[in-house]
Amino acid sequence: MTATIMSREEYLRQDLDARLPNYEKDGRLYDIMVSQQFSREFLETLFDIADRINAISHQPGGDDFLASLLRHKRAMLYFTQPSTRTFLSFLSACQIVGMRTGEVRDPSLSSEVKGESQEDALRTFSSYFDLIIMRDAKPGFCEYMAYLQQFAGRNVPIFNGGSGKDQHPTQALLDVYTMHRSFQDRGGISGKTYGFVGDLLRGRAVRSAAYLLTRYSGIKMIFAAPVEFQISPELESYLVEKGIAVQKTDSLEEALPQVDSLYMTRVQDEYDVSGESSRVDYTRYHLTCENIRRMKSDAIILHPLPRRFEIDPAIDSDPRAMYWRQLRNGMYIRAALILYVFGMEDRLAEFGGM
Amino acid sequence: MTATIMSREEYLRQDLDARLPNYEKDGRLYDIMVSQQFSREFLETLFDIADRINAISHQPGGDDFLASLLRHKRAMLYFTQPSTRTFLSFLSACQIVGMRTGEVRDPSLSSEVKGESQEDALRTFSSYFDLIIMRDAKPGFCEYMAYLQQFAGRNVPIFNGGSGKDQHPTQALLDVYTMHRSFQDRGGISGKTYGFVGDLLRGRAVRSAAYLLTRYSGIKMIFAAPVEFQISPELESYLVEKGIAVQKTDSLEEALPQVDSLYMTRVQDEYDVSGESSRVDYTRYHLTCENIRRMKSDAIILHPLPRRFEIDPAIDSDPRAMYWRQLRNGMYIRAALILYVFGMEDRLAEFGGM
Amino acid sequence: MTATIMSREEYLRQDLDARLPNYEKDGRLYDIMVSQQFSREFLETLFDIADRINAISHQPGGDDFLASLLRHKRAMLYFTQPSTRTFLSFLSACQIVGMRTGEVRDPSLSSEVKGESQEDALRTFSSYFDLIIMRDAKPGFCEYMAYLQQFAGRNVPIFNGGSGKDQHPTQALLDVYTMHRSFQDRGGISGKTYGFVGDLLRGRAVRSAAYLLTRYSGIKMIFAAPVEFQISPELESYLVEKGIAVQKTDSLEEALPQVDSLYMTRVQDEYDVSGESSRVDYTRYHLTCENIRRMKSDAIILHPLPRRFEIDPAIDSDPRAMYWRQLRNGMYIRAALILYVFGMEDRLAEFGGM
Repeated sequence: MTATIMSREEYLRQDLDARLPNYEKDGRLYDIMVSQQFSREFLETLFDIADRINAISHQPGGDDFLASLLRHKRAMLYFTQPSTRTFLSFLSACQIVGMRTGEVRDPSLSSEVKGESQEDALRTFSSYFDLIIMRDAKPGFCEYMAYLQQFAGRNVPIFNGGSGKDQHPTQALLDVYTMHRSFQDRGGISGKTYGFVGDLLRGRAVRSAAYLLTRYSGIKMIFAAPVEFQISPELESYLVEKGIAVQKTDSLEEALPQVDSLYMTRVQDEYDVSGESSRVDYTRYHLTCENIRRMKSDAIILHPLPRRFEIDPAIDSDPRAMYWRQLRNGMYIRAALILYVFGMEDRLAEFGGM
Repeated sequence: MTATIMSREEYLRQDLDARLPNYEKDGRLYDIMVSQQFSREFLETLFDIADRINAISHQPGGDDFLASLLRHKRAMLYFTQPSTRTFLSFLSACQIVGMRTGEVRDPSLSSEVKGESQEDALRTFSSYFDLIIMRDAKPGFCEYMAYLQQFAGRNVPIFNGGSGKDQHPTQALLDVYTMHRSFQDRGGISGKTYGFVGDLLRGRAVRSAAYLLTRYSGIKMIFAAPVEFQISPELESYLVEKGIAVQKTDSLEEALPQVDSLYMTRVQDEYDVSGESSRVDYTRYHLTCENIRRMKSDAIILHPLPRRFEIDPAIDSDPRAMYWRQLRNGMYIRAALILYVFGMEDRLAEFGGM
Repeated sequence: MTATIMSREEYLRQDLDARLPNYEKDGRLYDIMVSQQFSREFLETLFDIADRINAISHQPGGDDFLASLLRHKRAMLYFTQPSTRTFLSFLSACQIVGMRTGEVRDPSLSSEVKGESQEDALRTFSSYFDLIIMRDAKPGFCEYMAYLQQFAGRNVPIFNGGSGKDQHPTQALLDVYTMHRSFQDRGGISGKTYGFVGDLLRGRAVRSAAYLLTRYSGIKMIFAAPVEFQISPELESYLVEKGIAVQKTDSLEEALPQVDSLYMTRVQDEYDVSGESSRVDYTRYHLTCENIRRMKSDAIILHPLPRRFEIDPAIDSDPRAMYWRQLRNGMYIRAALILYVFGMEDRLAEFGGM
């Protein structure tokens, strides 16, 4: 009667390929955990849903229509790791498609003080809600919760909202979605040159975005970083193997004139072990009103935000600055993901105004 | 012109019977404070409402219909004592019937720092909202606020969400409602044998559930606990007087084969004065994959949650394990209570799908 | 390409008259920052909207109608300074007109820990939401954010929710709106006598309410305060110049029989430098069941709340006590302000029940 359930350690010790099927349901993605789940076909489906949400939201009555789609569903935002930005983006996404929400943001307020396991706490939330969006510091905890759901009487989708050192799959989606929208009228993502600048070794955003771009063809990537923070040999080999033309440099100036898309990042000094960051002159990787003149006039500038000094705020009003729009794209791609997981994307065709 | 208003101490010094009429309005329950308010007739009315909410929510369009019922009302969740579980259950209940909500969860963020009395703070909330659901550590504070409302220009219902050492009346409702649903096709709650296991002296959940079961006939209760934590002589006398067949034992094994319902509880060591809990071998009161074999095949296992080690998680997938469903029942019974207090239960008949 | 943007210090160094046009859009108020923005005509328009919202909300179906008006809009409540009362009032106002909301209340949970500027953080929120309501301790920060929005691709209205030592313009609106409602059938605000009692030097509420009353004619004001906390010579000159009859006294008794409206305030000891407050006998400025007998039978008693000991709670049930109604008026006037800023007030005429 009672099933044999792996411990978290046992579960995570398996290959990713063995774990991925747990995150599907009826042949569709259900739990969103890692970028490896996103095929080219899935990306195109999702980007199309996000495009339609965005278009509908700009029509009279569009927001009301969108908010009627999932008003019968409710989402739990379990963010025991602080993240105002991602939290609010997911909250907004839920509100766009009409979901009502509950929040757990302060772990110290939790009943976990009464000695409950975190598994039980999360199972409680999945009893009350129809979707769990979570960011938790414990490695692999999201994946393990998605796995455990199979053994529960109730199985609701779980989204990894960028937990600890785990992946941040929806960040990768919004990055590539922004490229998709920017290049929509210029032949799409394929065949373009993508620059990545800054702390490329330790930032997970760059790794995930580069990974997703391998789903497209004719891609060139230029990685401009101090040697200490250049991409890992593993990532480089992987990209080359996937047919990407890779160029590494320690000069931002060398990258600027070549790129169609420039992905800026801040130094990830929260990962410093012994002050590595302070030994690097990071100002050489800052975008200024001066050096952006060397960029193509139709290039785009991205940044996962928050920024520090990598991009002069005066650049914000330059038409190539796409990072604030990127932020809004995050809402739309997350709303698209929610509609997709609940199998509601076909309902978008019902909107009369289109 | 000015009324004579009792102080909190004066008010609480009165007999419960003198206080109860304050919690009614137009002959119906209005403020929910203690289990003593719930007659057999009220329980049957409420369980019927909850059954119908549950049924409607499983019909197409049902959730939307339910959420239309009280979308013009708004609830304040005032939880200055931490309680993720009860908080989210009430939040979900509000959302099920369409209420919008506001929260106060961190007392340190309150304007009380400016020297305001807590009575004024709560009167502020009742000025903004149509229902107050509260958990506050101050003894009898919920009752006192419900009393004070009479003298205010505005009187909104107040629900006690399990404040401090006060009762937790909606926990008792959800426990007995789970028995009602489980035994619905087997003759109902009356005539069954109910086991209670663990720290029976200090847990208020057991006391309240046992109390409510006295509303039914032909009930047998078996209390399995270490002698130190056995039920009080007062509770035993009360139950016997109400016609309950009471059996006390220190052996879980003795109880297992007899019970139709087994209510497990954790040790309430937060009430320890000098480490009482650590001197008891509580493992003798744990439910394991081994000893549940001695239970009837159609018995049910309940737990108010959170659990520690009283129930092996491997038992979760046993069909007799009812504690996760019990959790969801809590949402529905609370939603039913809200509809009842606002006199909206007749509107349920308007749902076309039924 | 890139605009010249003033720093916060530069911006605030300008005259208020130079800054005010930044808070308008298409000839209407857009950002709500200071009482100086409110003309007599604007006040009458706004009070009329609030009256209609209030009336509709008391009709069957009225709350549902109101909540349909802005259900396609979403508001961010950014309250990094604690304020339960104002926070919940704005939250309620948003809910009344149907807006969905997100919150940032705990600055320590913010991503600002990653080194982001507060300007970027707020720009993030304005990317996700359609309205920002904020209370932040940094002087002039609200105004500066409203100014910066012009240079962003997206410009959403910003409301100052009573930031730090800045003005609290919606408090002033709700105070004067309460006078408007109370005197509606007695010739309106003009021609009446307004008493202000307590710490008149340091409380911003009194200053702002007195300022707004200069928009009306035939006003007399009596300021009853200990000499140490009497109004400033600047405020007195300003009022006299505007045609107000000003009387100053240190005796509450002298004021009581004269006033049509009595505005009570608590001592603002949070502004004490060296214990000034403790050297004053503030009990002389308390309203008691005794001394209210000296007031006119149709006078009104106001208080911005929270109160300490200035008003005996026994007075709450006196029909002249208007402070709890004043609190509810705050919700309606804020809801009116939201409708106005989104240009939705004409939609109120669509309500069939009126």
